[in-house]
Amino acid sequence: MAYDYMREMMRTLLLLIFILFPAVDAYSDAGHDKAHDMSGEKTKMGMHQADNAMQNMKDAGKYEYIRVETPAGFNAVIGTKNHLEELKPVIVIEKGVMIKVFTLTVKDVEFDIFPGKSIKGWGFNGNIPAPIIRVTEGDRVRIILMNDTDTEHTVHVHGQTKPVISDGVPFIGQKGVKKGETHAIEFTVRNIGTSWYHCHVDSAHHVDMGMYGAFIVEPKKEKLEYDREYVYVLDEWPTAHVHMHRETGEGNKEMTAGHDEHSTMTMHEVSEPEHKQMDEKPVKRDWYPETYEPQNKVYDGFTINGRSFPLTEPMLVKEGERVRIRFINSGYQQHFMHVHSHKFIVVARDGSYVNEPQKIDTVGIGPGQRVDIILFADNPGIWPFHCHRLNHVTNEHIYPGGMLMFMKYVK
Amino acid sequence: MAYDYMREMMRTLLLLIFILFPAVDAYSDAGHDKAHDMSGEKTKMGMHQADNAMQNMKDAGKYEYIRVETPAGFNAVIGTKNHLEELKPVIVIEKGVMIKVFTLTVKDVEFDIFPGKSIKGWGFNGNIPAPIIRVTEGDRVRIILMNDTDTEHTVHVHGQTKPVISDGVPFIGQKGVKKGETHAIEFTVRNIGTSWYHCHVDSAHHVDMGMYGAFIVEPKKEKLEYDREYVYVLDEWPTAHVHMHRETGEGNKEMTAGHDEHSTMTMHEVSEPEHKQMDEKPVKRDWYPETYEPQNKVYDGFTINGRSFPLTEPMLVKEGERVRIRFINSGYQQHFMHVHSHKFIVVARDGSYVNEPQKIDTVGIGPGQRVDIILFADNPGIWPFHCHRLNHVTNEHIYPGGMLMFMKYVK
Amino acid sequence: MAYDYMREMMRTLLLLIFILFPAVDAYSDAGHDKAHDMSGEKTKMGMHQADNAMQNMKDAGKYEYIRVETPAGFNAVIGTKNHLEELKPVIVIEKGVMIKVFTLTVKDVEFDIFPGKSIKGWGFNGNIPAPIIRVTEGDRVRIILMNDTDTEHTVHVHGQTKPVISDGVPFIGQKGVKKGETHAIEFTVRNIGTSWYHCHVDSAHHVDMGMYGAFIVEPKKEKLEYDREYVYVLDEWPTAHVHMHRETGEGNKEMTAGHDEHSTMTMHEVSEPEHKQMDEKPVKRDWYPETYEPQNKVYDGFTINGRSFPLTEPMLVKEGERVRIRFINSGYQQHFMHVHSHKFIVVARDGSYVNEPQKIDTVGIGPGQRVDIILFADNPGIWPFHCHRLNHVTNEHIYPGGMLMFMKYVK
Repeated sequence: MAYDYMREMMRTLLLLIFILFPAVDAYSDAGHDKAHDMSGEKTKMGMHQADNAMQNMKDAGKYEYIRVETPAGFNAVIGTKNHLEELKPVIVIEKGVMIKVFTLTVKDVEFDIFPGKSIKGWGFNGNIPAPIIRVTEGDRVRIILMNDTDTEHTVHVHGQTKPVISDGVPFIGQKGVKKGETHAIEFTVRNIGTSWYHCHVDSAHHVDMGMYGAFIVEPKKEKLEYDREYVYVLDEWPTAHVHMHRETGEGNKEMTAGHDEHSTMTMHEVSEPEHKQMDEKPVKRDWYPETYEPQNKVYDGFTINGRSFPLTEPMLVKEGERVRIRFINSGYQQHFMHVHSHKFIVVARDGSYVNEPQKIDTVGIGPGQRVDIILFADNPGIWPFHCHRLNHVTNEHIYPGGMLMFMKYVK
Repeated sequence: MAYDYMREMMRTLLLLIFILFPAVDAYSDAGHDKAHDMSGEKTKMGMHQADNAMQNMKDAGKYEYIRVETPAGFNAVIGTKNHLEELKPVIVIEKGVMIKVFTLTVKDVEFDIFPGKSIKGWGFNGNIPAPIIRVTEGDRVRIILMNDTDTEHTVHVHGQTKPVISDGVPFIGQKGVKKGETHAIEFTVRNIGTSWYHCHVDSAHHVDMGMYGAFIVEPKKEKLEYDREYVYVLDEWPTAHVHMHRETGEGNKEMTAGHDEHSTMTMHEVSEPEHKQMDEKPVKRDWYPETYEPQNKVYDGFTINGRSFPLTEPMLVKEGERVRIRFINSGYQQHFMHVHSHKFIVVARDGSYVNEPQKIDTVGIGPGQRVDIILFADNPGIWPFHCHRLNHVTNEHIYPGGMLMFMKYVK
Repeated sequence: MAYDYMREMMRTLLLLIFILFPAVDAYSDAGHDKAHDMSGEKTKMGMHQADNAMQNMKDAGKYEYIRVETPAGFNAVIGTKNHLEELKPVIVIEKGVMIKVFTLTVKDVEFDIFPGKSIKGWGFNGNIPAPIIRVTEGDRVRIILMNDTDTEHTVHVHGQTKPVISDGVPFIGQKGVKKGETHAIEFTVRNIGTSWYHCHVDSAHHVDMGMYGAFIVEPKKEKLEYDREYVYVLDEWPTAHVHMHRETGEGNKEMTAGHDEHSTMTMHEVSEPEHKQMDEKPVKRDWYPETYEPQNKVYDGFTINGRSFPLTEPMLVKEGERVRIRFINSGYQQHFMHVHSHKFIVVARDGSYVNEPQKIDTVGIGPGQRVDIILFADNPGIWPFHCHRLNHVTNEHIYPGGMLMFMKYVK
């Protein structure tokens, strides 16, 4: 193996600059600009460069990147803090029955899906994903939904058996919950394992807007042995999507007292909307009470717990641990999660125990499905953990990004 | 929980109007028009509104919707009648052998995939999906194909072992069957469970046109115990697809006696064809006898047994029943069928028994695959049953629609 | 069954002409042109025809098609020779340890993905897929990577446990290997069965360019009994993709001594590039050392071992054999492989033995996954073996093509 040590040393120096001044490009912009002056593309490129520089300045220090020194000699960004919250219940006793009460308020959310890309969504309690709800088999659970947005919502718990009126389906079990309203669903928890909850109004749209969270049911007696648990909710996002919200229905009309129906437009980004129906009114249907906008999206953002790399959170493990990972796919595409240099076994599907003793390294999780795995932490290091649809490891089609996080061994 | 009872009452009244006069919008169009007059968009919106109104008038009473009173106080549309036919064989004895003879005639079909959207396809016996063929393990089966369309077809039974000449692959086992011709395939049925049949000429196109049906083989001794059976064939449709058919080949030339080759165009819809090769002749290939059109489609219709919600048929069950559901995916995308508030187990894959005792609630069925499940009807009510790729629960990108049906408990 | 024997005889004659003169269209072009003269589309169609004719002339004899006489009376093209190479190691002994050394050189590759469609890619040792690396459980393996292209690369072995520095991830375990450089990874093989290797630089792009191959680990004691083995690597290709390569980084600058940064463009085809960022510089990111182009592709080529039908190689079997097939999905879409008139069982997933005794006929292989099956060759004939996403059985959307090969019984 032939190495040019001088070149390596210079490269290392440049990388040190890169590492020490993360908001400044490691490779001199001046040099690039000069090159482009000579290529006659100065004006456009210059502006583009300037935009980038400004964006970089704006972003400087915005994200608290977690870095590690790698064996290759880099101080590599491996993520940011993005921990899932867990929602603590209020315990009430009614007629001698203990009820665990969880209150969720839907709020407008604006967040950076990846550096420089702001997204608007709706979040239960303002979080995307929503906070984890964790209960025990046999618990009586009440979920109170409040709404602080202009659009109707409900909460539906996927994977749990319950009465129709607590299933969260609008027009079937309840009415959509309007701004300022409150509605409760209640049921006894019968199905163990990893479930999830999401909004069921105009689902194809609202789930896409980030209205989902883990609903975990601990069995009375856990059969599995593990040392650590992680919950990962997978999703895709249309980063260039123009979200349109038209306030319709007599309910909204009353609320907007004296105002006519109107449209508001929320832009995920201004460039290239996929649909251009702004000047058309949605077609009313004689077989459904509400009208919704068409949702024809192009997905170019891919998230683990609502963030794309490098805003994903590293997964910390200790050597020798058995790590239970609960994958929930809240998106509309199947994802194939793969971890480098490790094997794992599937221990539960849709919450129920399964017996798949074989070791695999790439597991498919379909839309709506949950797959629990146990990973054996037996190979210390820093390891990529990502979807192996490699075009999902991109942000706006640029590698790396998307559904990528790092598994890092700690002492 | 704070309720504004007056508002609720008014809403209920409006909904009653909606329910009683399904062809009339529940919410006054006049009010909308007024709003748009003020916004200066009158002309366009007015015309659009008028179109909608006319469409609604035209559709009024066209579909015999099935409605149920829901706990939420709605008289909700939960589907229409759309039952799969089962094809009875003619029994013949040849040389002492009993043969079950099924005759299928391919016909041009035009049907509404969802309200207001007409689609042209090809159907075995004029049905999409084709009628169920049900036989018993060990049967001798003959399928006679007749063709009443301008395009060649064959019938191929997927999942059944047979001689090459009865496999339905054009140029390999037989010639394509032209208009007016008849061709028979014959084989002894060896593989139990859920198979399916489809055309194998220009398959990517012909299967997309609806040429598929269930082929069910009852075992001599059924291991499974169940009380009721449903068969669901899943597919996606390009509702805006412009179907082009060019009559080519010397065979057609003879039939069109004295006419030159010509093109006919069948529009699924006039707007926005995905491909615009109308003025180009398909490239001939020196390695295949026939030339076909490119099929580059955008799928925005999603069907269970050939219909999108609300034209899907409700699935009726009784409390306590074990319901065997045979899913067949005749489309080109994987689907993930989920039922609310119930669990099921997978009992067969591609026709063969499997042992997957764990309960799941969302099952993936890949293109060409069959998955049989047994669902335990233990939670009376009205429950959505749908693909959890939620963008498949839409019609032309508008929720709800697509691969959604309702499971309804009956006495 | 009514047959028009005269018509059949004429057709057979025409087909004989087709078969004997494969570069000449079976059906007279003159006749077509005449038809189009009459339709007034002469000029355009004529030119198009001329182009086709020229292409056919150019291609005549270019591909050595394998043909079989079929029961239907055709001399059908069933593929070409396209056998996977197996890379023999050099054995070295270092400090008493035997090491199997494999040397891979990345080269620019240009090949026909299907007749008339040339593709540019990068190939390990100039092959797409790369040659099979076959070792035994417990072997010490060294893979030396050399690079003869203008872009950095690495080699990563998916499914094998190893130290970080031998994992092939740029910036983590090593630096990208530049043109003219050499880099070795080394590890002891611990995971049996079907693994694979691929480049890990700008993976979403480089794997798409064909940088993948099988890495097979024979167990010390094979539990499975089989008579024959085939390895099939599945992938999708963007045949209209315009590949852009911009040489960036201080490393490249040194190499291009005195030249400014420049762009080179590699066209898969000149028509309709999907992205048009040619005039924009890729956005630099303060969290990653390198900049890459966006890769937003439309996949319309589908390959088994790097070729689409009819350039796929037929799979030869003998009656009575148990055939082990190792599927590796190196693409970004799931594929569903189906063989006509046969059943098979899944015997390994991601290299590890599994116990799925049921017979199936259509198996899904997700991106990154490996599925080993054993197929029972019990039904002599010529049988299509293809992905049942039937739109994957096309070349540029035209059926047949893509992920289709023929299984042929031989004596």
